[in-house]
Amino acid sequence: MLVSMSSTAGLVIPCKAAVAWEAGKPLVMEQVEVAPPQVMEVRIKIKYTSLCHTDLYFWEAKGQTPLFPRIFGHEAAGIVESVGEGVTDLKEGDHVLPVFTGECGDCSHCKSEESNMCDLLRINTDRGVMINDGKSRFSINGNPINHFVGTSTFSEYTVVHSGCLAKINPLAPLDKVCILSCGISTGLGATLNVAKPKKGSSVAIFGLGAVGLAAAEGARIAGASRIIGVDLNPKRFVEAKKFGVTEFVNPKDHNRPVHEVLQEMTNGGVDRSLECTGNINAMMSAFECVHDGWGVAVLVGVPNKDAVFMTKPINVLNERTLKGTFFGNYKPRTDLPSVVNMYMNKEFELDKFITHHVPFSEINKAFEYMIRGEGLRCIINMEE
Amino acid sequence: MLVSMSSTAGLVIPCKAAVAWEAGKPLVMEQVEVAPPQVMEVRIKIKYTSLCHTDLYFWEAKGQTPLFPRIFGHEAAGIVESVGEGVTDLKEGDHVLPVFTGECGDCSHCKSEESNMCDLLRINTDRGVMINDGKSRFSINGNPINHFVGTSTFSEYTVVHSGCLAKINPLAPLDKVCILSCGISTGLGATLNVAKPKKGSSVAIFGLGAVGLAAAEGARIAGASRIIGVDLNPKRFVEAKKFGVTEFVNPKDHNRPVHEVLQEMTNGGVDRSLECTGNINAMMSAFECVHDGWGVAVLVGVPNKDAVFMTKPINVLNERTLKGTFFGNYKPRTDLPSVVNMYMNKEFELDKFITHHVPFSEINKAFEYMIRGEGLRCIINMEE
Ligand SMILES: NC(=O)c1ccc[n+]([C@@H]2O[C@H](COP(=O)([O-])OP(=O)(O)OC[C@H]3O[C@@H](n4cnc5c(N)ncnc54)[C@H](O)[C@@H]3O)[C@@H](O)[C@H]2O)c1
Ligand SMILES: NC(=O)c1ccc[n+]([C@@H]2O[C@H](COP(=O)([O-])OP(=O)(O)OC[C@H]3O[C@@H](n4cnc5c(N)ncnc54)[C@H](O)[C@@H]3O)[C@@H](O)[C@H]2O)c1
Ligand SMILES: [Zn+2]
Ligand SMILES: [Zn+2]
Ligand SMILES: [Zn+2]
Ligand SMILES: [Zn+2]
Repeated sequence: MLVSMSSTAGLVIPCKAAVAWEAGKPLVMEQVEVAPPQVMEVRIKIKYTSLCHTDLYFWEAKGQTPLFPRIFGHEAAGIVESVGEGVTDLKEGDHVLPVFTGECGDCSHCKSEESNMCDLLRINTDRGVMINDGKSRFSINGNPINHFVGTSTFSEYTVVHSGCLAKINPLAPLDKVCILSCGISTGLGATLNVAKPKKGSSVAIFGLGAVGLAAAEGARIAGASRIIGVDLNPKRFVEAKKFGVTEFVNPKDHNRPVHEVLQEMTNGGVDRSLECTGNINAMMSAFECVHDGWGVAVLVGVPNKDAVFMTKPINVLNERTLKGTFFGNYKPRTDLPSVVNMYMNKEFELDKFITHHVPFSEINKAFEYMIRGEGLRCIINMEE
Repeated sequence: MLVSMSSTAGLVIPCKAAVAWEAGKPLVMEQVEVAPPQVMEVRIKIKYTSLCHTDLYFWEAKGQTPLFPRIFGHEAAGIVESVGEGVTDLKEGDHVLPVFTGECGDCSHCKSEESNMCDLLRINTDRGVMINDGKSRFSINGNPINHFVGTSTFSEYTVVHSGCLAKINPLAPLDKVCILSCGISTGLGATLNVAKPKKGSSVAIFGLGAVGLAAAEGARIAGASRIIGVDLNPKRFVEAKKFGVTEFVNPKDHNRPVHEVLQEMTNGGVDRSLECTGNINAMMSAFECVHDGWGVAVLVGVPNKDAVFMTKPINVLNERTLKGTFFGNYKPRTDLPSVVNMYMNKEFELDKFITHHVPFSEINKAFEYMIRGEGLRCIINMEE
């Protein structure tokens, strides 16, 4: 059998990457060398990437162990350049979404229908190396540069574990579906896979960033009749209207707890709530605002390490459910291809999440937009 | 149409009742007068009653508004003596279980498939009267005696809202199935309706009283392969063996948190846990001991009013679920008749819960057994 092979397979590839040398300092465009993929690894050419809060958070390195120099980036779409030993389900030319969490297929989580928290490939923000040999595939003049969550998509080429790559419909536009590799799928899945609102039900969304608006999109798809957006920033309400959010509550406009406001608006509480802020008070309000008897609250936002969730046990005993989700409970390899196909079938839109575009050379602008809280997603074109 | 009517229908019935005159003082056998049932009410002859912790708790009246004199009792079985206006689904001679919570059939909870927390007839421990006229049906020399949770089964005759009565199979032995009207159904339903362990899964039960052992019985019925009992009282482990509990953990035997002990025993955590103690620390351990990715913890025990449930949000985000239940999520009128039939079909046993018997005249002995933590359930025979 004759297999087509890229001319670069097996070789080190020199290419451009945006390297973070220090916490909070602008990324620097560098020429890096990308080693070939090892056992179960895949090297991909990134076509588009976008910036997610998690990149910003670890780049700022407030409150975590800093790991620099590092190549950030985890929301992206690319094309397989070459595969390492043992990789049988991907080949050169396949269109893929790299994902910060993986699916080994063999562990108890991968075998469970309910969990997507793979034991082997679960997100690890402290690790800057590949698991096969504990080393980096990136170097500059022989000095290693750290990986980030196994993806490092702010580079023209990157090496990813094959368990962290979803092979997608080759007709899907990569400049759109790249945002499905993190935040949008997280919000969408949190609603569709975890909160599961029924047709005609009421849903509260805490936090109207990209994740919360994707959760709202999920509520719209599920047929919720009331989608109540809660945010401290009134500017968010303008964008949110495009996402089917029907009512808005700014906790600052009320001098009583926001869960009471929501309970009053909905005759006892909403049927479902989704917490997409990461703020601990929003988490507790999101739980207490759901209706007794059947309400379900789903936590999505990533909290501060020292935060403690507190509630009176009677709130639980009165038949409320509290759940949490990670990447919207999607299994990256098994489920992401169908999320991409949902988009292709026009079940939801991605354009409205994309508020900015920059060429790779101006990647620091994407950081500035996010820091200023401007817009939702900025697409970074690797070929400009 | 000729309808048989009891000779006492419409009349005041004088009978014996065990009256609590003061908090914590032995009940006193009195002659009371029981008025006829009003609109939507039913008067029943109690055949057997048993004592549940909730009776003891309100009789002790520590930390609640005391309401005396009062007729306690809510776990019982009886026979309809007469029905009030508007009652169409019950008639003289029907065998019934009175339940401390009801099912009006019309409110949003009753119409929801998920909730059993009826808006109209939900438990109200502060109310000592019937809802129709805000008055008591019990009196001694014209002075009213308070009801308790709408049941007051420590009386030969009592008046109950028809929404709080489950009509059961007339072949069911009332001296056994009386205990299905509270604690046993609560534990059984918590497992079967809420925790829903899969065949072959692991289940931890915190608290091996009647409720916890009924939860263990549910786990056995569901086909759990490991049922781990957790209790501070090693005596409980002897009884628990009869209930299919396969392993035991006494938190006092370990100098690290019990959730860590359970996680180690089960390779990361149990699949399901049920909290049946009411102790806030047990609630938090029950949540943290379930496996990430799919674990579900169900709170059943009734906590102290001031208790606060606390956990790190990451425990939730790692795809654990926290739920609470009230009366095992059974709808009293709709579901209890089939629980009785499960017993009749030998799907579970009740004998092993019944550790004591006393005649009605010696009801205070039942209180003594419970205070000393002796046995599980004491059946009080109203006709002895
Ligand atoms: N679980 C996962 O797999 C996963 C994946 C991606 C992102 N996330 C998390 O989801 C969260 C949201 O991400 P995003 O990109 O949409 O963030 P974002 O910053 O764009 O949006 C958050 C919104 O929450 C609002 N907010 C903050 N505190 C609030 C409060 N107390 N009450 C109401 N609104 C409040 C802000 O004004 C903002 O509009 C973050 O915590 C992120 O880390 C989780
Ligand atoms: N939700 C409902 O509808 C409902 C109905 C009936 C009873 N209940 C509640 O269920 C709970 C159990 O009732 P029961 O009749 O079985 O009580 P019980 O007192 O017979 O049993 C409780 C057991 O828990 C053990 N325990 C106490 N603290 C513990 C701890 N920290 N760790 C481990 N074990 C501990 C005790 O040793 C005891 O064996 C009570 O809180 C009761 O109020 C709830
Ligand atoms: Zn796995
Ligand atoms: Zn992300
Ligand atoms: Zn009702
Ligand atoms: Zn009870």
